[in-house]
Formats: sequence, structure tokens, C-alpha cells
Amino acid sequence: MKLIRFGEYGNEKTGVCINDVKYDTSAFGEDYNEQFFETDGLKRLADFVKQNEGKLPMVSDDVRLGSPIARPSKIVCIGLNYADHAKETGATIPSEPVVFMKSTTALCGPFDDIMIPKNSVKTDWEVELAVVIGKKASYIEETEAMDYVAGYCLHNDVSEREFQIEKGGTWDKGKGCDTFAPLGPWLVTKDEIADSDNLNLWLTVNGKKMQAGTTANFIFRIPFIISYVSQFMTLLPGDVISTGTPAGVGLGFNPPIYLNPGDVVELGIDSLGTAKQQVVAFSK
Amino acid sequence: MKLIRFGEYGNEKTGVCINDVKYDTSAFGEDYNEQFFETDGLKRLADFVKQNEGKLPMVSDDVRLGSPIARPSKIVCIGLNYADHAKETGATIPSEPVVFMKSTTALCGPFDDIMIPKNSVKTDWEVELAVVIGKKASYIEETEAMDYVAGYCLHNDVSEREFQIEKGGTWDKGKGCDTFAPLGPWLVTKDEIADSDNLNLWLTVNGKKMQAGTTANFIFRIPFIISYVSQFMTLLPGDVISTGTPAGVGLGFNPPIYLNPGDVVELGIDSLGTAKQQVVAFSK
Repeated sequence: MKLIRFGEYGNEKTGVCINDVKYDTSAFGEDYNEQFFETDGLKRLADFVKQNEGKLPMVSDDVRLGSPIARPSKIVCIGLNYADHAKETGATIPSEPVVFMKSTTALCGPFDDIMIPKNSVKTDWEVELAVVIGKKASYIEETEAMDYVAGYCLHNDVSEREFQIEKGGTWDKGKGCDTFAPLGPWLVTKDEIADSDNLNLWLTVNGKKMQAGTTANFIFRIPFIISYVSQFMTLLPGDVISTGTPAGVGLGFNPPIYLNPGDVVELGIDSLGTAKQQVVAFSK
Repeated sequence: MKLIRFGEYGNEKTGVCINDVKYDTSAFGEDYNEQFFETDGLKRLADFVKQNEGKLPMVSDDVRLGSPIARPSKIVCIGLNYADHAKETGATIPSEPVVFMKSTTALCGPFDDIMIPKNSVKTDWEVELAVVIGKKASYIEETEAMDYVAGYCLHNDVSEREFQIEKGGTWDKGKGCDTFAPLGPWLVTKDEIADSDNLNLWLTVNGKKMQAGTTANFIFRIPFIISYVSQFMTLLPGDVISTGTPAGVGLGFNPPIYLNPGDVVELGIDSLGTAKQQVVAFSK
């Protein structure tokens, strides 16, 4: 199943996407949030969709897509999870996952604008596979970790490198600006992805291929990551773990290349769809 | 006004504390959450309390206190914000605030147990003044920052030093374990605190004074911190910013001293009340 949310920012309705057609499921009466996932919502939604086959209103293609999930309790990110990306940023390959957090206010839709923050000159891109947690996870074993996965999304882990690296302290400063977490187009449920460790992912800027990787090159695989993060914090249903980016970010070029107003970022992951974001100047 | 939440974990009711007596305000019908703060809830609650003077049910002193606010969208913490603490940890005094985030699942009540995480041998304490945000704040000027404050709470920013410092990446791994954010007893509204830059704060372990500081020694003051954080992420009503800890944490001793099951931590801040937490061993 492919879940979508659509409509005005902050006031999205829910839907599903079947054979490239989008349907409105707001009659189901629940947002795709913590409570939805916690109460077996995916199964209940699938039943609802089946019962209403042929009767669900279609959603026009010109309607804005929002994040396919409601604002989660947290967005946890894994840094430096592809060896080629660690190398391009001058970092050593980590012996255990690098973990940081993204303010959930950064969440936006897959075709929304990326706004360059005020005083930013180093806004960068990162195509990533994001995992959505399906049920509460604390001290989970690697062998059982996949039971806790609801599905996957395409994510652009937009990053401001000066804020992230040059201002002291942790990376969190450069990761949570508004519009820095375009998610979607879909939440693709786990059953639709045969092998999450073998998906191509790519990103272009103004049509030029900047990132082209595969999750086969993960340093730490999804079950290990979920187990690992769950040792340090309880994951709630609907929470997001973003699994890191392959080589090809702007910081990795010599000299680095950063986003400017007017740039267009496109990205995609096998089976998880594509997204496109226009970069715009700061405005309050 | 002093706001409290009481009752079973995860199912708290709301109340207020007037002249050391606790009253049930659940008839007001709203939790102390984002929507409450966003819709001028403090003013509406004050009116409700006034209208119901003498009629509110009292809350027994043996009832558990929860966090005085509902789970916020985020808990942002400032590191190394007292020069004496920076020195004891061997860090240089930061030129701008160190920012990290605490998983909101760490939130608990002021008298709840602190649970040592699995595989932890370096669980540490940090008495802190926490600021609760009253309205949405993005790119706020320092001069207007206090308009965005709802009030203040006592906070123990419990920290696992091995997870925080020795496992690579950012500090977030050692800050968000369950029970690592005891908050309260009260949310004290801004109008009750004449000078948040002149409050004594202290913490004892098993009756021995470990921390004794004053917010007069902040490196970065509250209006600056709010303005600074709001440059990097949008703060939502009900969000928490914890302002750092003075000297005297376990990590600062030679050799370091960490918490063990059976230890009792007590802490307090002038006008913000006191809290007491028993340390217990890990149990799933």
C-alpha cells in the first residue's frame, strides 16, 4: 500500500495511491499519526480501502502532496552510513552509527520549496531512505527489528553545513530548519519492498546527476540501525529514522557546491517514488 | 500561576498549585499541550481558576506528579552554558551556544524513578532551568524573545556519558533514554519569576551537595538562547529549551562519580520547586 497526505500545509487529508491514481481516504477518519500506527491502522486502512473499492473520491494531480505521515514524535537520522559519503566529507568510517535528530518542524511535502535559511550560504542536499516505525520499540534485537517497521519513504535530509559543522556543538543546528525534511511522495508499506538493502537512490540538481548510490552499500543495515537506536531512546509508532546518504553531496565537491534560489532538486529511490523541490530565498 | 499534571504516567490530569495546595483543573478540558499554549491557554486557565475559586477539587499529596506539560514537539538543550561546568568537563567555553536534542520519550515526572539504561555505567545528573515556549518562534530577535516564554520548570537533564561522548557522533545518544528528563514539579508562569537570571539551583546525591550554582553565571542568557535557537529551528508552543547545568556533575569529579541503583537525587531551583528521584536498575 502507498499512503499519501494531500492538501494545504498543516491541514492535510489522507489518501492512498493505487496504480498511480490517488484516492481520498479522509472518510477513514484518522490521520497517519502515532495513534494510527499504534492501533494497527495500516491493516484497518487496507480493509477500509478494500471495502470502498470503486467508491473512493479521486484526488486531482494538481493538488499539493504533504508529508505522507503526520508530524512524528521525532526524526532520528544516521550520519555517514555509506562509505563513499564518509570519505567525501573527510570523515572516517564510523565504528558504530552516528545518530542525530532533526526538528520535526522541518517536515514538509515532497514537492514543496526548500527555503534557504536566513544567513545561510551552505545549504546542501542528501537523498535518503527513511524508515517509518510501526510500533513502540525499546531495546529491540536486530533479529526482530523488521517487525517494528511500518514502511519506507523517500527523504531529502537537507542540511546547512556551516550551521551543522562550523558553529560548535552537535549537528542538530544544521538539520532542522523549516523545509529541511521533504518526505514522500508516499509511505510505501514494508510488504511492497522485497529488499530494502538493494534499492538505487539518486539526486539531481538542475538536471545534473549529483548522487547515484544503492542501499546495498549501507555500512549499517536497517535492522541493525533500528536495534541500535532503540538502545538509546524509545521509538514511537510513526517515528522516522533516516538512514544516511551516499556520496555526491555539495560538501563533497572541491570547491563545495551549495544550493541557490532558483535551483531545482529532483530525487528518487527505487519503488519509493520521486520528488522535486524548488529552492527559494529566505522569507519570513 | 503554577501548573501541574498528576496521575498515572501517560494519562495525567491537569491541575494548578496555589499556596502549596494542589487543585484539579481537569474540568477545564484541555491538556497543557501545544494547542493549549497556542490558543492563549494560560490566560484562559487563569480565568477558569478564578471563576471556580473555592470549587476546584483538591489533589491529595500522595498522588503522583507527572511532567507539568504534555509531551512537546521537542526538547532542545544548551550544553556548556556555565563556565565552571565547561571547565570541569575539560571543554573550552563555547563562543556560541552548543545545541542538542533530547528525545521527548525521556520526559517523566519530578518524583519518578531514574532508570539506569541497559549497558550503562555512566549515568549522570544535571540540574537545569528549563524554559517552556509560549508561542511559535522563528527568527526571533533577542529583544522580543521574552514575549515567547510561557514559563519555567526545574529539569534534571539526566545524561549517559559513555553514550554521549564515547560512541561517536553527536551527544543525542546519551540524552534521550527513558526517564532522562524529569520535569517539574511545576510550570511556573513567567510573571511569577522576577529575574530568571538570578536563581540559585542545586542538586544533591544521597544528601550530599553536588551542584550549587546560580543562573547569574549563565554564559548565554535566556533571551539570547531563544533568539539563537530560533535561527535554526522553529520553536512551537509547549516546546522546552533547557539552559544548561552548572559545575558539579559526576563527570567532573576525578575519578568521575556516576549514579547507581538505590541512589537518591534531589534538586531544586529558587521559585521553581524541588524534585526527588530514586535511581533504579534497568528493567524492560
